[in-house]
Amino acid sequence: MPRPDGRLATQLRPVKMERGVAKYAEGSCLISIGDTRVLCTASIEDKVPPFLKGQGKGWVTAEYSMLPRATLTRTPRDASSGKPNGRTVEIQRLIGRSLRSVVDDHLLGERTIWIDCDVLQADGGTRTASITGAFVALVESVVWLKRKGLIKTLPFNEWVSAVSVGVVAGEERLDLAYAEDSAAAVDMNVVMTDTSRYIEVQGTAEGAPFDRNRLNRLLDLALEGTRELISIQREVLKGLI
Amino acid sequence: MPRPDGRLATQLRPVKMERGVAKYAEGSCLISIGDTRVLCTASIEDKVPPFLKGQGKGWVTAEYSMLPRATLTRTPRDASSGKPNGRTVEIQRLIGRSLRSVVDDHLLGERTIWIDCDVLQADGGTRTASITGAFVALVESVVWLKRKGLIKTLPFNEWVSAVSVGVVAGEERLDLAYAEDSAAAVDMNVVMTDTSRYIEVQGTAEGAPFDRNRLNRLLDLALEGTRELISIQREVLKGLI
Amino acid sequence: MPRPDGRLATQLRPVKMERGVAKYAEGSCLISIGDTRVLCTASIEDKVPPFLKGQGKGWVTAEYSMLPRATLTRTPRDASSGKPNGRTVEIQRLIGRSLRSVVDDHLLGERTIWIDCDVLQADGGTRTASITGAFVALVESVVWLKRKGLIKTLPFNEWVSAVSVGVVAGEERLDLAYAEDSAAAVDMNVVMTDTSRYIEVQGTAEGAPFDRNRLNRLLDLALEGTRELISIQREVLKGLI
Amino acid sequence: MPRPDGRLATQLRPVKMERGVAKYAEGSCLISIGDTRVLCTASIEDKVPPFLKGQGKGWVTAEYSMLPRATLTRTPRDASSGKPNGRTVEIQRLIGRSLRSVVDDHLLGERTIWIDCDVLQADGGTRTASITGAFVALVESVVWLKRKGLIKTLPFNEWVSAVSVGVVAGEERLDLAYAEDSAAAVDMNVVMTDTSRYIEVQGTAEGAPFDRNRLNRLLDLALEGTRELISIQREVLKGLI
Amino acid sequence: MPRPDGRLATQLRPVKMERGVAKYAEGSCLISIGDTRVLCTASIEDKVPPFLKGQGKGWVTAEYSMLPRATLTRTPRDASSGKPNGRTVEIQRLIGRSLRSVVDDHLLGERTIWIDCDVLQADGGTRTASITGAFVALVESVVWLKRKGLIKTLPFNEWVSAVSVGVVAGEERLDLAYAEDSAAAVDMNVVMTDTSRYIEVQGTAEGAPFDRNRLNRLLDLALEGTRELISIQREVLKGLI
Amino acid sequence: MPRPDGRLATQLRPVKMERGVAKYAEGSCLISIGDTRVLCTASIEDKVPPFLKGQGKGWVTAEYSMLPRATLTRTPRDASSGKPNGRTVEIQRLIGRSLRSVVDDHLLGERTIWIDCDVLQADGGTRTASITGAFVALVESVVWLKRKGLIKTLPFNEWVSAVSVGVVAGEERLDLAYAEDSAAAVDMNVVMTDTSRYIEVQGTAEGAPFDRNRLNRLLDLALEGTRELISIQREVLKGLI
Repeated sequence: MPRPDGRLATQLRPVKMERGVAKYAEGSCLISIGDTRVLCTASIEDKVPPFLKGQGKGWVTAEYSMLPRATLTRTPRDASSGKPNGRTVEIQRLIGRSLRSVVDDHLLGERTIWIDCDVLQADGGTRTASITGAFVALVESVVWLKRKGLIKTLPFNEWVSAVSVGVVAGEERLDLAYAEDSAAAVDMNVVMTDTSRYIEVQGTAEGAPFDRNRLNRLLDLALEGTRELISIQREVLKGLI
Repeated sequence: MPRPDGRLATQLRPVKMERGVAKYAEGSCLISIGDTRVLCTASIEDKVPPFLKGQGKGWVTAEYSMLPRATLTRTPRDASSGKPNGRTVEIQRLIGRSLRSVVDDHLLGERTIWIDCDVLQADGGTRTASITGAFVALVESVVWLKRKGLIKTLPFNEWVSAVSVGVVAGEERLDLAYAEDSAAAVDMNVVMTDTSRYIEVQGTAEGAPFDRNRLNRLLDLALEGTRELISIQREVLKGLI
Repeated sequence: MPRPDGRLATQLRPVKMERGVAKYAEGSCLISIGDTRVLCTASIEDKVPPFLKGQGKGWVTAEYSMLPRATLTRTPRDASSGKPNGRTVEIQRLIGRSLRSVVDDHLLGERTIWIDCDVLQADGGTRTASITGAFVALVESVVWLKRKGLIKTLPFNEWVSAVSVGVVAGEERLDLAYAEDSAAAVDMNVVMTDTSRYIEVQGTAEGAPFDRNRLNRLLDLALEGTRELISIQREVLKGLI
Repeated sequence: MPRPDGRLATQLRPVKMERGVAKYAEGSCLISIGDTRVLCTASIEDKVPPFLKGQGKGWVTAEYSMLPRATLTRTPRDASSGKPNGRTVEIQRLIGRSLRSVVDDHLLGERTIWIDCDVLQADGGTRTASITGAFVALVESVVWLKRKGLIKTLPFNEWVSAVSVGVVAGEERLDLAYAEDSAAAVDMNVVMTDTSRYIEVQGTAEGAPFDRNRLNRLLDLALEGTRELISIQREVLKGLI
Repeated sequence: MPRPDGRLATQLRPVKMERGVAKYAEGSCLISIGDTRVLCTASIEDKVPPFLKGQGKGWVTAEYSMLPRATLTRTPRDASSGKPNGRTVEIQRLIGRSLRSVVDDHLLGERTIWIDCDVLQADGGTRTASITGAFVALVESVVWLKRKGLIKTLPFNEWVSAVSVGVVAGEERLDLAYAEDSAAAVDMNVVMTDTSRYIEVQGTAEGAPFDRNRLNRLLDLALEGTRELISIQREVLKGLI
Repeated sequence: MPRPDGRLATQLRPVKMERGVAKYAEGSCLISIGDTRVLCTASIEDKVPPFLKGQGKGWVTAEYSMLPRATLTRTPRDASSGKPNGRTVEIQRLIGRSLRSVVDDHLLGERTIWIDCDVLQADGGTRTASITGAFVALVESVVWLKRKGLIKTLPFNEWVSAVSVGVVAGEERLDLAYAEDSAAAVDMNVVMTDTSRYIEVQGTAEGAPFDRNRLNRLLDLALEGTRELISIQREVLKGLI
């Protein structure tokens, strides 16, 4: 069974990242992967949460949201129900964790970087697109800090990107679009560095459990995908760092 | 004292409206007025609120939100505080009311049109830009209904646009940007039809009260502004209706 | 079509204001306009909100609420839904803004005046009655401050009252009762000073949009109405200031 | 040590009940006991909560609230915190229980009586005043039902009133005002019928525990107080039933 | 009509208290009374609520909760509704008040004791079991304070236990299980000290009001019950104090 | 560096599971793993969420909570903040997903199984202990259904258990206790079946990213751990199925 858009199982959808798209933000990136489109901004705040005060260390935190009509049918806003729903909470914790794992909090100094990932259009893979785009926005914002003379060294030591992989129609596939994602037997999100190491591996059997061979093939695909995304990030950030 | 961007007191900022920008929505418009940028979508739902059930009439309702970094400094999301704040509530009620006043609810049939106005970037006049852009999205969505054969007649009888006017440095001015808005002595939002009639007039003395002559001059400016906006709406919707 | 209570189109309902009705409050006024009855209190607090701290300026803020059975049928309390509803928020922002626009915040000093407007019975025009009664309560409270020697000068420079006007059965009318209000084609609230200047003008087309001539005639009526209300305020405050 | 207002230990404060004070409510009573003033309304609704549906039985429920400036210093509204506070919840449950215990729910039929007790001014004993006034409002509302022909028999079989008693300065006293209440070693609320039977007895040691003799003397006082209140209720309802 | 479990009207169900059951808490007690089982913990915190700051006095506060399946059918958690329900609030206020009335807050010093009563299984009498078990946990926690040298004297002057009594099938009975409780005509909770004095008496007519003789017989039963519970508390705390 | 409790890197803490511990629940299991203790109950409800209605399929959902003093220092209840926090949400979604993946929803019929996991004491690994214990409770509850004749076949096709693994002091270790967990460089939770297949793999770099060799060794450890847990589950359920 071929993929809906005719891609190979090992192929990403068309990827585009544009940085500097938000006039007021210290860093920003509009990322599209296929029809998925996420606006990521990075905002610098000159203080840290109470639990970090006075330790000379910074903090990175993320919020994630979807516009109500990013989706096939309209989804009510979190604000109407009075709280972010479970899925939103899970995703924003993942984004924050992923970025913090490569940021050197001492080099950042007592500052918070707020990452906002707002999904303008959702066609699968919004959480991994958010991480990949957020990394670009974060880099822009720390370059801003450095150019202002507020930090001396760029406070990150590896590059981060993320991709989804899964099993559809019995086949391991890279970068699932929504139609595939909702039919997947296994759904996995992998966050990796440019040194081919793992920041986060989250694999879920949606239908039947899966075995170790399958897991290994999915991890192979994810490695290919994140490598390609990192090379695009390098392209879009060229000249800046 | 000249205007920050050198405009005449009677001049709008550059206006751009683009329709059909949201893949899944029945109607959409991305409107820019200067640096203010709002994504407006119209979503058709095949039911009405309980208070209208069984009356053969439709409903139009609006939600308004700003991305956290639409603003100069980051604004926390409404969802974190558990409820839309007062300003948000005021604005979304205004947008809904404005559109309902030109929609023929019997022609619409028992359907709800959800208007979502999400401010991507905010440089003053976001509520009036939202109304102006929302009208374009609404028109797209009812054309969609008609093309599907779900309605026979386009269910609106006048065109709607909105503009802000105000008094800055003692002078009446059209279409205030944020820097002017926050320094304004009088702040007025006017929603008008293509027949030069009023849907809503909201004028507020921010500093000293203002007299009737001033009110009249502000209403004159608003008339000019909304006329120009309606001619742009006609341009962008040409061919569609 | 005559008015339900036989009034002229240009006539207010019977108005009564009684001050000093709340034993513990620094200022209070029970205002009745026809069957609408609002208890307004002014409470002095010796601090200001965080955003004003240390600037030597005061603050005026308002809260508005209706008793559940102020209305024809019982309305659930805001507290049961966990938040003030949209209409409540809109009204209390309007009351606060209206009073702040005539209060000299430096003369007031670093204090907050909390205005509470609790509608005991609602027969239309509760927001304008609230503003008119709240002004009396506010004056009582600043006189209390002055008599205590806490301020030297009464910190307001104009008098404020408010009235509703509207179009019913094709006719412009002053001070709509509930039955007229719910049938009105245009509904306008006007807040004015004793120098016949505007603090707030809010006109809404409930049905069809309205033209400029109609707007002008409504503004004429509102001027008559607020003048009469201010003369009653002067009567009830005579001897106090 | 004499009482602040010179009363005997066995004496109530001046009591006044006025019925029919709310234009729209099916029943209402404004009760004053000293400076405590509560507006009680009874609203008839033609349905019952889900757990009673289809059983041919009615329901009585109560809500209690204080105006923000009913108190010596301003108390924030429950709606600002998003929920009724603990004390409010406790009191409204007590009022509801007290009235339900004398109402014959089958005679009432599938209807709910909503009792709203809004404290306009609070000088101690607001919960017992609420119960006493609420009973009058409830009676008015069931008479309204009977006059409309909706019920055949008045659906209550005993009269209800409530009073506070307590120990102040070592002495048992009837009907504590706020100043006494806050200094009381024992605080007790008693809800009784006209047949001298108990609906609710709630006694709390605020300081040291109290012995059985003291409990007995407090119960004696409560009996005197509720008898007197019931005779005033009979007076105000004379002619109605 | 005999009792469901064959007990005498004057008999408690089997009682068991086990202390030191929570590894991390400063004090703890698992109490079973029949099938009712409550885990009570006491946590010491080195600060007091704002209203007590700087007065050299301590505070005792309680929280009460039921596991969802403590009950016959599953009860949704308070957290899903966003707030503790009315019954929960009432009970936790009662537990806190009962313990505070025997604690010497000056001897405790500026500390808070948090009492948590979590009902693992509920078969009637959970609030009285909570108080009885909480007292044991509290004693353990103040002994912990004393052994650490943080206080010199154990800061309580009487022992506290609580029991329910009620009228079932026309008979006064001690310690109602759930089946009896839900059929009771009168339901009373009594909190007493080892000196046979009252901390709290709460009697409610669930059906018809009750007379003074009945009240007296219920108080006699409660005295027997609390005496027996206190002797069990002494047993379990023997060796500790 | 040896483990705090002297275990081998490949060794589980002492494990104990006890079933049938909750009188009212259709299924229950009290699981201890070292000092971690979780009470898991399964409650059968005869309906499904709206999105499943009429499809002849069942649903399994989970809630997770910690008693406030399950932890080293007291943690405020979710109910006080008005919503489950992010971590809670993440965990209860994981538990629900894990159990659903082995339950045959058609065999279950239109019923919901509510799984409640309440942590009585927390010393690391509460989420994996919850899943392991919840599976036992779930099995008990479906056996109850079968014995009642409500289903014909036990509706699950594999056994589920879960374990945490991690990297501490440079070494891969099985089943981290809290002290190790908080010092771990990599933290991974693995949910597996008795056929050695994966239901969920969640690995997170807490400090530096980790490479594929490390991932593989962690997966090896997890396999050993879950095998051992499943053999204990078989033991405790022997005789039941």
